[in-house]
Amino acid sequence: MPHPVLLVLDADPSPRLGRLTGRVDVRYADASSLAGQLPAADVLLVWDTASDAVRKAWPGPGARPRWVHTAGTGVDRLLCPELIASDTVLTRARGLGERPVAEYAAGLVLAFAKDLPGTLELQRLRRWRPREGEEVAGSRAVVVGAGPVGREITRLLHGLGVTVALVGRTARRTLHGVADLDRLAARADWVIAAVPLTESTRSMFDRRFFGLLQPSARFVNVGHGATVVEADLVDALDRRWLAGAALDVFEDEPLDGRSPLWDVPGLLVSAHRSGNTVGRHDRLGEQFVAMYEQWAQGGPLPHVVDKRLGHVPSRDLPEGVAAP
Amino acid sequence: MPHPVLLVLDADPSPRLGRLTGRVDVRYADASSLAGQLPAADVLLVWDTASDAVRKAWPGPGARPRWVHTAGTGVDRLLCPELIASDTVLTRARGLGERPVAEYAAGLVLAFAKDLPGTLELQRLRRWRPREGEEVAGSRAVVVGAGPVGREITRLLHGLGVTVALVGRTARRTLHGVADLDRLAARADWVIAAVPLTESTRSMFDRRFFGLLQPSARFVNVGHGATVVEADLVDALDRRWLAGAALDVFEDEPLDGRSPLWDVPGLLVSAHRSGNTVGRHDRLGEQFVAMYEQWAQGGPLPHVVDKRLGHVPSRDLPEGVAAP
Repeated sequence: MPHPVLLVLDADPSPRLGRLTGRVDVRYADASSLAGQLPAADVLLVWDTASDAVRKAWPGPGARPRWVHTAGTGVDRLLCPELIASDTVLTRARGLGERPVAEYAAGLVLAFAKDLPGTLELQRLRRWRPREGEEVAGSRAVVVGAGPVGREITRLLHGLGVTVALVGRTARRTLHGVADLDRLAARADWVIAAVPLTESTRSMFDRRFFGLLQPSARFVNVGHGATVVEADLVDALDRRWLAGAALDVFEDEPLDGRSPLWDVPGLLVSAHRSGNTVGRHDRLGEQFVAMYEQWAQGGPLPHVVDKRLGHVPSRDLPEGVAAP
Repeated sequence: MPHPVLLVLDADPSPRLGRLTGRVDVRYADASSLAGQLPAADVLLVWDTASDAVRKAWPGPGARPRWVHTAGTGVDRLLCPELIASDTVLTRARGLGERPVAEYAAGLVLAFAKDLPGTLELQRLRRWRPREGEEVAGSRAVVVGAGPVGREITRLLHGLGVTVALVGRTARRTLHGVADLDRLAARADWVIAAVPLTESTRSMFDRRFFGLLQPSARFVNVGHGATVVEADLVDALDRRWLAGAALDVFEDEPLDGRSPLWDVPGLLVSAHRSGNTVGRHDRLGEQFVAMYEQWAQGGPLPHVVDKRLGHVPSRDLPEGVAAP
């Protein structure tokens, strides 16, 4: 019996497939060769999570893999109507990205409160100027997006003494629904966005939303770039509708060196790096290998994406979430 | 009966004494007038916590106040043998500084792990370069100094998933003694110094100590400048004995604009600001007023410093401290 064909949409560094060596027929594809190789594949591993090659190649002729796994957390770059309608199971990485992203978001909150950017600037100028920082304990945050990342952010901020309201699609027990967002955002010190990109979240953080915020509030986006209308955020910062913002994700990545976003006063720009940590690639590879072994034995796969919703359906809420 | 004389070693902004107005005879002193005014004072409020005028003026002739309160947390700038030997009660501010300092220390840990300084530098250069950060969860910290600040730092880092060893003068239950410090520091990712300045802590972080650290470790000082041999730290950073450091306190403050410390690669310099938060002066004033009212009624004073030890004797340990 021939080995199952594992097709890898590859990126540098390639995944380490360890125990699978000799047990699967591994083939590698890039954006241009993917369409031609898809019909022969039993399993597709999307290692290049920044690519939208799957969405483009999927609708073509021929058979399709029974299982697609992405080494990322978002699936908006993969989904097309044909993949959604198919029997193919779609899974995503889990438990690897949320902690680093949450730590990055918590680090930004503390950096804003203590004005670390200003401190570094004073150091550059060799200027001694004691200043007053803000206390994070007792401040109020709204975390938008109740997926694993939003929950982990909620947990960490709660540990720092922040009162956190977590907002998901619909209210449920201690989870607020999106209908509460305006009211909560209007009294928040921190708005942290970690929402998946769907048709209902695209451009949800716009001029109207920024107009609701307190002038002392800060906005942080560690979710998807296209949920923010960047021009509206720049304009709101310019009008001092809010006190600061940090974007780790953008509508167009990589951000062009000539983009005006690089030097907006009060805006901290980072290169989609919040989820990257040392050793992450190895752990993502190990996670896929373990899932492959379950699949090969006919067991149920974890982290299955609801292709219609565009994310893994959520279950329990973290501790420390403020009641609605 | 005349009102008690409250002498204030003043600083800008002056304390708001609120409810005490009309009930005490408030007089203000600076470093040059302090010695002449001390004999008439019942109570001395050290509002200028950066001054060493008390230590200099105290040994002079005449009566001395029965109570001295400092609006700071350290008492090393106040103590002289004559004050230690006297019956005068010395109290210090409490519960106001530790939280902001701990938040500042936690913010530095996250900023180092995610290389926020490097991120800001790349933004200045308009350069998109995704990089890998370190995960804070699962890393190891040693917090040196088991006073309120060290305990609060321990609590916050524990909440971020860091394994923390807290080191005090002598081992006790879950507290490590200073005899364990070398062994703990040698395997730590973070060494956070928050020790009071005494004869046994002066210059304790020196060439020998930095030589123990892992090359990936970072050192943070939010305690007292003179506990660190600054030249040794600079040399150790230069030799890459450790990966980075942050100093918020210095042997000589304010740090001179020509000091070589301002541009040591890997060293983050801030202007003794970790404890400063918005509204802090008002809260310090309120705390003194409340303590004054207890004192005037003959009640026992809280936050009394053991003048021989140089700090307030510690009691319970915080949760989340790793057992020795």
